[in-house]
Amino acid sequence: MTRILLLNPNTSASVTERMMVVARKSATPGTEVIGHTVTRGVPYIATRAEAVIGGAVALEALAERAGEFDAAIIAAFGDPGLSGARELLDVPVIGLAEAGLLTACMLGHRFSVVSFSTALGPWYRECVTAHGLASRLASIRLLDGPFRSIAEVPEEKADLLVRLAQKAVEEDGADVIVLAGAPLAGLAGAVKHLVPVPVIECTAAAVRQAELLVGLDPAKARAGSFARPEPKTSIGLPPPLARLLATAGDDMSTVSN
Amino acid sequence: MTRILLLNPNTSASVTERMMVVARKSATPGTEVIGHTVTRGVPYIATRAEAVIGGAVALEALAERAGEFDAAIIAAFGDPGLSGARELLDVPVIGLAEAGLLTACMLGHRFSVVSFSTALGPWYRECVTAHGLASRLASIRLLDGPFRSIAEVPEEKADLLVRLAQKAVEEDGADVIVLAGAPLAGLAGAVKHLVPVPVIECTAAAVRQAELLVGLDPAKARAGSFARPEPKTSIGLPPPLARLLATAGDDMSTVSN
Amino acid sequence: MTRILLLNPNTSASVTERMMVVARKSATPGTEVIGHTVTRGVPYIATRAEAVIGGAVALEALAERAGEFDAAIIAAFGDPGLSGARELLDVPVIGLAEAGLLTACMLGHRFSVVSFSTALGPWYRECVTAHGLASRLASIRLLDGPFRSIAEVPEEKADLLVRLAQKAVEEDGADVIVLAGAPLAGLAGAVKHLVPVPVIECTAAAVRQAELLVGLDPAKARAGSFARPEPKTSIGLPPPLARLLATAGDDMSTVSN
Amino acid sequence: MTRILLLNPNTSASVTERMMVVARKSATPGTEVIGHTVTRGVPYIATRAEAVIGGAVALEALAERAGEFDAAIIAAFGDPGLSGARELLDVPVIGLAEAGLLTACMLGHRFSVVSFSTALGPWYRECVTAHGLASRLASIRLLDGPFRSIAEVPEEKADLLVRLAQKAVEEDGADVIVLAGAPLAGLAGAVKHLVPVPVIECTAAAVRQAELLVGLDPAKARAGSFARPEPKTSIGLPPPLARLLATAGDDMSTVSN
Amino acid sequence: MTRILLLNPNTSASVTERMMVVARKSATPGTEVIGHTVTRGVPYIATRAEAVIGGAVALEALAERAGEFDAAIIAAFGDPGLSGARELLDVPVIGLAEAGLLTACMLGHRFSVVSFSTALGPWYRECVTAHGLASRLASIRLLDGPFRSIAEVPEEKADLLVRLAQKAVEEDGADVIVLAGAPLAGLAGAVKHLVPVPVIECTAAAVRQAELLVGLDPAKARAGSFARPEPKTSIGLPPPLARLLATAGDDMSTVSN
Amino acid sequence: MTRILLLNPNTSASVTERMMVVARKSATPGTEVIGHTVTRGVPYIATRAEAVIGGAVALEALAERAGEFDAAIIAAFGDPGLSGARELLDVPVIGLAEAGLLTACMLGHRFSVVSFSTALGPWYRECVTAHGLASRLASIRLLDGPFRSIAEVPEEKADLLVRLAQKAVEEDGADVIVLAGAPLAGLAGAVKHLVPVPVIECTAAAVRQAELLVGLDPAKARAGSFARPEPKTSIGLPPPLARLLATAGDDMSTVSN
Repeated sequence: MTRILLLNPNTSASVTERMMVVARKSATPGTEVIGHTVTRGVPYIATRAEAVIGGAVALEALAERAGEFDAAIIAAFGDPGLSGARELLDVPVIGLAEAGLLTACMLGHRFSVVSFSTALGPWYRECVTAHGLASRLASIRLLDGPFRSIAEVPEEKADLLVRLAQKAVEEDGADVIVLAGAPLAGLAGAVKHLVPVPVIECTAAAVRQAELLVGLDPAKARAGSFARPEPKTSIGLPPPLARLLATAGDDMSTVSN
Repeated sequence: MTRILLLNPNTSASVTERMMVVARKSATPGTEVIGHTVTRGVPYIATRAEAVIGGAVALEALAERAGEFDAAIIAAFGDPGLSGARELLDVPVIGLAEAGLLTACMLGHRFSVVSFSTALGPWYRECVTAHGLASRLASIRLLDGPFRSIAEVPEEKADLLVRLAQKAVEEDGADVIVLAGAPLAGLAGAVKHLVPVPVIECTAAAVRQAELLVGLDPAKARAGSFARPEPKTSIGLPPPLARLLATAGDDMSTVSN
Repeated sequence: MTRILLLNPNTSASVTERMMVVARKSATPGTEVIGHTVTRGVPYIATRAEAVIGGAVALEALAERAGEFDAAIIAAFGDPGLSGARELLDVPVIGLAEAGLLTACMLGHRFSVVSFSTALGPWYRECVTAHGLASRLASIRLLDGPFRSIAEVPEEKADLLVRLAQKAVEEDGADVIVLAGAPLAGLAGAVKHLVPVPVIECTAAAVRQAELLVGLDPAKARAGSFARPEPKTSIGLPPPLARLLATAGDDMSTVSN
Repeated sequence: MTRILLLNPNTSASVTERMMVVARKSATPGTEVIGHTVTRGVPYIATRAEAVIGGAVALEALAERAGEFDAAIIAAFGDPGLSGARELLDVPVIGLAEAGLLTACMLGHRFSVVSFSTALGPWYRECVTAHGLASRLASIRLLDGPFRSIAEVPEEKADLLVRLAQKAVEEDGADVIVLAGAPLAGLAGAVKHLVPVPVIECTAAAVRQAELLVGLDPAKARAGSFARPEPKTSIGLPPPLARLLATAGDDMSTVSN
Repeated sequence: MTRILLLNPNTSASVTERMMVVARKSATPGTEVIGHTVTRGVPYIATRAEAVIGGAVALEALAERAGEFDAAIIAAFGDPGLSGARELLDVPVIGLAEAGLLTACMLGHRFSVVSFSTALGPWYRECVTAHGLASRLASIRLLDGPFRSIAEVPEEKADLLVRLAQKAVEEDGADVIVLAGAPLAGLAGAVKHLVPVPVIECTAAAVRQAELLVGLDPAKARAGSFARPEPKTSIGLPPPLARLLATAGDDMSTVSN
Repeated sequence: MTRILLLNPNTSASVTERMMVVARKSATPGTEVIGHTVTRGVPYIATRAEAVIGGAVALEALAERAGEFDAAIIAAFGDPGLSGARELLDVPVIGLAEAGLLTACMLGHRFSVVSFSTALGPWYRECVTAHGLASRLASIRLLDGPFRSIAEVPEEKADLLVRLAQKAVEEDGADVIVLAGAPLAGLAGAVKHLVPVPVIECTAAAVRQAELLVGLDPAKARAGSFARPEPKTSIGLPPPLARLLATAGDDMSTVSN
């Protein structure tokens, strides 16, 4: 049995549940996906400031659940805390954006990121750049109106998002569309027949990539920049995270497995 | 049942068989991997000229076998013919290098490519660049001595390759090692405990990524640069490839399924 | 009177005090530098994971002290939380690395970053890249031995760091040396005569750049990606940060001045 | 007497003839241009798949004619097989795009590529990038309607192409226009007075650059990535190409001169 | 007393005077700004050819005034002669563009350059690129109509420039606006309330950055690419420049202090 | 008869003569190469400061000789004043570095620049970058000892330069060697048999490329960034340059032909 933690660094349980519907459907037999909604932070991360907070909260949650999963997904497009989590944990951790973007790379040369709020633009662009994939980005296309509820964005905005995706193909040269943002989970399946290029469902991609990484059974880095950091004392952090930081790589098993 | 064609664009059946051992072991239940060794070309592609030939031969083989598989792997690091194949076929096609490199991206920030012959260097570097991943390449490290037989490189060179990988970690800042080249299939599993960072087995990564793409069930592009080319008559090409080129996207089902 | 908050996102008060010695000496008359050591986190940030935590803690501290300063310095090389802080606050915020690197750009074409621990390398490299300055980076040179105490690194390591800086000039083509890391505050002044190119004291550069920004009196962005985020409710965050997130840009004055 | 092989990797003899008219006019006295239309492949290459095939066919043709020329032009914009040919042959080989783009670099800083079919866009863009010239590309502008006959595109589309070129100057900042695509041979001369910046005739540029390279009498690389590949046996390739692959660099004279 | 030479490499005294008004207001107490208008060259530099001339004239003027200042500003956006001046002089030299662009980097992630003549575009773009800041450039927006007098551009064009700046924010994603060009000195202060992001006054930024560099008291490079060039005899140059070129770095004090 | 001005922006007539020997030998029948040594400036340009001066002097000389040539070569590697000259003149102008580098691109993928003085490094690197060719640069290799006379560098340093070139091939991956610097004119022919990759003689390449451009008969740009600048009055410039700047593009013929 492969256990995958789907960690939503937003506090919106409804969004977690939406992703869990897709995750359960996408997982192959023998995989259990465990949803986790953080209990600190904001309902949905949309800016750099919120991503900073969400990154730290994600590390806290991963430390708290360490030992309960074989791989983890940081389930917010933008991947808050991803590199840090990859250092700290001894199991694979992947980001929702990372999984979606790398999967898109196998279906075309240039992808467009389509989402529901202009506020997300700079954070998403910096995320694509941080992954070193800027040369494969055709465009980021975002809706600019308000939305009623973060829980029901796909229902409210499906038509407009499809139109954006079509424009990205027609005008920006997109070979693939990445529907970005945890709240859009499930939308790709519903609209893919309306878009003339492959449409990536990031949640499904992330679950499958997490399974793939578990299947490859990579060793935890013992050198290089993703080896466990030197043990450190800390002040004022939640005990599980403090313990994880205080533990040397050699003793990892006692902490996280 | 998911059928994956593992297409070796080299004429060395022994190398295909080596990859098939890994492929069968890596595939999840319900997947059949079909090995195919091309019958035109060179025993192993090592230069740009040979890659040009191998790319065309790969297209011929894919056309010949079209309809027999749900996804195909172009199983030579360097991915000869990959973009062209992705245009022509209506099922996912991925490259051995592409699968290895993108998988490496999920296990660290910078990877080194390690292989057995300096002749491969320029082709591999141009491959990494063509995938837009140059910013994530820590180094390419290659052995420079001759080898006895392409069929037994891993047995002959394991120790030297491990030493190269260790140097890539120590001196080049590699977070992940990609053991590159079809003839090295199977080596990663044998030596991963000797290298202090994750070591990518490209054949396993490719089989799993192919399964993943089939699982996501992406639509064939009907627009953008990976839509089927306009039908064209041709001269002197093998009949299956000529038929594939002559067929419009709308009629694909009659050709390739 | 210009008030500048020198915010140390590490918990080491001794490091803050070391920076404050330099800051007081560098500040022009009419500037008051206020030191602040965070009370959550690790003694010194050296990895991506610690930077994620330090970034969130920095935002908490900035929110707590909002209204007490005309500009803030995030005083850890690596600039944890910088972009987020720049969104949230209505006064200028600059990073220790940012100030040092941009100042170096005015004294030569390529700079080398020199510091005391190899662990810092990846984080520093990603920081330079995130600032868009990778093309001006000649090298990062780091000591690889252990150190006795974070409070006394400059005394212990001065000779070795000077030798590294000299090598960066001789072998890497550095036109300027950036002595990086809060614990090295004060070292540049002590060793600059031993290095044949300009040596940047980041703390001094940061204090002066903060004064400069206050002097230019830039308007807070009301549009673009550094405008205040839309107000948001949050859960479990320290009250000052929660209030700051909950406040619209239009009402900023009531929160932060 | 300098003999230049103008090798059209498309099967359209009419296009070869069109290029030959320009080539004969451009060649300086003492140069004989030999036209060669391939007898395998497609009438005109427009996609990556067709370029893969055309690249291999180009190598076959070059091997077949080896010894008959002092330099060769791969006369399709996109330069299929160019790097491979440069490895294999002991005389200079240049591409139609390469010659046009590099010549354009000497007449301005940024160039636009103008051609007659949107299908060509991705292939052309990847060609410019592969030559390392993306930073000098102002734009690619392409007509999107159908055309009656590949043999008469210039006559049919001249006005529209001129308008595109003018727009590239006015809106994209082009300093030079590269009229791209073998079928457009001869058009530059006819329309250059209608475009307010230099217009490159690629066929003329290629003939002249080929003459220039012959004149410089460069040694064939005996090291580096364009030295002759190690001799290799092959299966199923046309005999001249098989012989060329089977011949070591030291014995080249017996094969190709 | 800190003496800063504001060197206008244009021959327009009225533009120097406009900058001096801003410079005097921006300088902190204890700074004397010395205006200098060159007596050779063109009234305002707008093209690469004029910048080449202006660069040489700037070196002549700096040599002539050497010893009278503690830092110099090359006060034309485009920074003609900047790198050369930095080699030759033993005090800091900064460019008007350099100061504006680097200061903008501390107030947002991407900046737009806004100015009054389309002729300036290529020169400005090449300047941003030469400083290694192209990845932070959102756009260059330029007015395209004629202007009545170089001395009164701000009065004549303020409304149009504000509109351009607003468009750069709305359409190009600018976080900061850099009002570029010596003739626009003083405009930023007058219009900053009309633009919803920070607007950089380059003259003020340059004066303040010059003060900052003097305050940091950097050593003149004795190695690296900004050390004094080897002494050289010359022909036909103005005596002060000839003397400066003829003087070794070790004897600099006798020349320039 | 094609007249090519070989303009040496250094004051060393011996270097001009050395280039003229190569130029006369390289030129095709019907070409007259006219040597011109400037009478202002330094004996050989080696730094950015000297390049600034040399650029302006080059414009003066081109203006003085305008009307006497069909194309001009700025015959110093580094190409001082090239872009400006290209704006001002109505005939093609090319740089010695530009010609050498672009020609090298047709003979391999990556080139190394080899020259005789470390002082030249930064200027040469910035030249390669300014031409947009940094991705094709394998390395710059420079001798670091002193030399007896600029007129006899090739005789004195041939062996050392050959060794550098060999190292560039062996260690840096150079496919082509560019022997850089006007004083090295003629060396390539003498040593090419000692270097296992093509060696570019820049003077020959420049003469041939100049002939090629004349042969293509490109129109002078009437739009874009290389159109003639708007006419401008100037002060204190040599009369021919002042006249050229004062003349509108429409009246060019009266000035320069």
